[in-house]
Amino acid sequence: MKKTSLLILLIFTLLFSLQCNSSNPNNSERPDFALVIHGGAGTILKKNMTDEQEKAYRDILEKALRTGEKILVDGGSSLDAVVEVITLMEDSPLFNAGKGAVFTHEGKNELDASLMNGSDLNVGAVAGVTRIKNPIQLTRRVMENSPHVLFARDGAEAFAATQGIDLVDPAYFHTEKRWKSLQKVLQKEAAEKSAYIKTSSDEQKFGTVGCLALDKNGDLAAGTSTGGMTNKRFGRVGDSPIIGAGTYANNQTCAVSATGHGEYFIRNMVAYDISAMMEYKNLSVEQAAAKAIAKVGAMKATGGVIALDKNGNIAMPFNTEGMYRGYIVAGENPVVKIYKDN
Amino acid sequence: MKKTSLLILLIFTLLFSLQCNSSNPNNSERPDFALVIHGGAGTILKKNMTDEQEKAYRDILEKALRTGEKILVDGGSSLDAVVEVITLMEDSPLFNAGKGAVFTHEGKNELDASLMNGSDLNVGAVAGVTRIKNPIQLTRRVMENSPHVLFARDGAEAFAATQGIDLVDPAYFHTEKRWKSLQKVLQKEAAEKSAYIKTSSDEQKFGTVGCLALDKNGDLAAGTSTGGMTNKRFGRVGDSPIIGAGTYANNQTCAVSATGHGEYFIRNMVAYDISAMMEYKNLSVEQAAAKAIAKVGAMKATGGVIALDKNGNIAMPFNTEGMYRGYIVAGENPVVKIYKDN
Repeated sequence: MKKTSLLILLIFTLLFSLQCNSSNPNNSERPDFALVIHGGAGTILKKNMTDEQEKAYRDILEKALRTGEKILVDGGSSLDAVVEVITLMEDSPLFNAGKGAVFTHEGKNELDASLMNGSDLNVGAVAGVTRIKNPIQLTRRVMENSPHVLFARDGAEAFAATQGIDLVDPAYFHTEKRWKSLQKVLQKEAAEKSAYIKTSSDEQKFGTVGCLALDKNGDLAAGTSTGGMTNKRFGRVGDSPIIGAGTYANNQTCAVSATGHGEYFIRNMVAYDISAMMEYKNLSVEQAAAKAIAKVGAMKATGGVIALDKNGNIAMPFNTEGMYRGYIVAGENPVVKIYKDN
Repeated sequence: MKKTSLLILLIFTLLFSLQCNSSNPNNSERPDFALVIHGGAGTILKKNMTDEQEKAYRDILEKALRTGEKILVDGGSSLDAVVEVITLMEDSPLFNAGKGAVFTHEGKNELDASLMNGSDLNVGAVAGVTRIKNPIQLTRRVMENSPHVLFARDGAEAFAATQGIDLVDPAYFHTEKRWKSLQKVLQKEAAEKSAYIKTSSDEQKFGTVGCLALDKNGDLAAGTSTGGMTNKRFGRVGDSPIIGAGTYANNQTCAVSATGHGEYFIRNMVAYDISAMMEYKNLSVEQAAAKAIAKVGAMKATGGVIALDKNGNIAMPFNTEGMYRGYIVAGENPVVKIYKDN
């Protein structure tokens, strides 16, 4: 009798312990390296895209993945890979970051970016810069060459000047496509006699780029870069330069970069929340990322995240029609997706 | 036999469930209202303070508590109380916020503030404003009258102008004490031939003010306001205007306001982390706040937080010599403390 009841007790004890500390159901054998990217989420539908347009996006996403792969294969750090990949995406007019940044209400381009190092939780970020060709490169200088983590607007540019970073003519960021987007929104605003942005279409909000990397040392890094929202005013800062909202990396948990309606990503602390749910609730990266996007969705806001855990597991949830995204894991082919399934 | 073993099983089951969901050991009977304030943490020692100085601080802290109490007794909202109390503290030259803000490297005063509503997680924040007498009042306009959450520098002031908020002459923020602090740091910098802020004394970093309130409806709110760091440059943004770092409020968990070496409070997402540990690990507000300050301390950074949970429990941990702080709970006398114990 005693043996039987003890056995039953033991089984129950074990069952409850497991429930308390449900272990990560994912892969725990870390690949040599992994890299994940996004180029923004939104109403991205195949029917609205020409074959040429789709090919252009798939090509640049694959090129970005291959660029990061080369750095990581050669033993480069996750920070090196993230900065290099985002630089490439900032230089493309296809994304709302760097060259392809959207216009503010006043017809300017104000760029935000942030970078986080998972090994020491160090951070660099800039908000509202208008003359920095590659904001992501400036975030690395903020992280490594200043005791601070976030510089804003003209202040960030004054810091850039001390770092020998070339300031470009703001005209560099002028692209016809983005200029027309602004004109369309301004006309709509005038027609509605609205003194303020009341409606904001997907086209206004999205296109942010982000990159996460896990290097051979097991170090994670995350970066995000954006032009923000078409027709933004008043030095509006979104989630991209805000650590914990748009970007987060911690070697103990995961790296995250977000894209979407930034105000809601700030209010929900999306990037850090994913890490917190992994650390404190023992959720997998897929479970945590899905829950974080569900919280944003519960506020009727849209967007997506990419997340990469310390073991190379990847999650890319979004609640929009599509998200430009892709990943590459050591020894495997790159994967690029745009729509819900492919 | 069966009955005995079933009983034992039942007991074990109960024990393990309790372990999984250990309930908050604190008070769960909510007082009618509660309000908590801080006026900065740092090397605040009795031996360095005259009786008059100490009395001035104790008087203004008690006046702030009584101001908040009156609003909450009358059924005012936690947001009303937080904005009114912080306005009073901003108007005092004793704190590094509003009137008493420290000077930047260029001899300007650049103010940061944020406000969060625990009932809907709405947020308003401004960074680097130079002509706003009460930045906390501007954060409420950002929260309520714009679809955005954070405005920076000249942009934030342009928004203020649309809200009928009076812009003051920047000279309003000139106080001799803060001006001398800047001169001292600049002389030290010159002597060290340092092109950058290498050392940063407590006096440079601290004095931020914050307020948390729980109103009769059970709604929590949190606000923080600061002049930042003496000799700051490049549009440096600290943790005070960053939701999740310096300020957080959520009716489901707690309200938090932080003070200290802002860069580390950003890297550790201190304010949201306290809420996350309460929500995900079921820690009490005291346990969560203590852990958050321990994390900052592990990075050799200093500061403190005030935290108020949805049931009126209060925590005020800091790892410096002192922190100007106080609280008032419905039906009780206000409590004001400066040093470790009193």
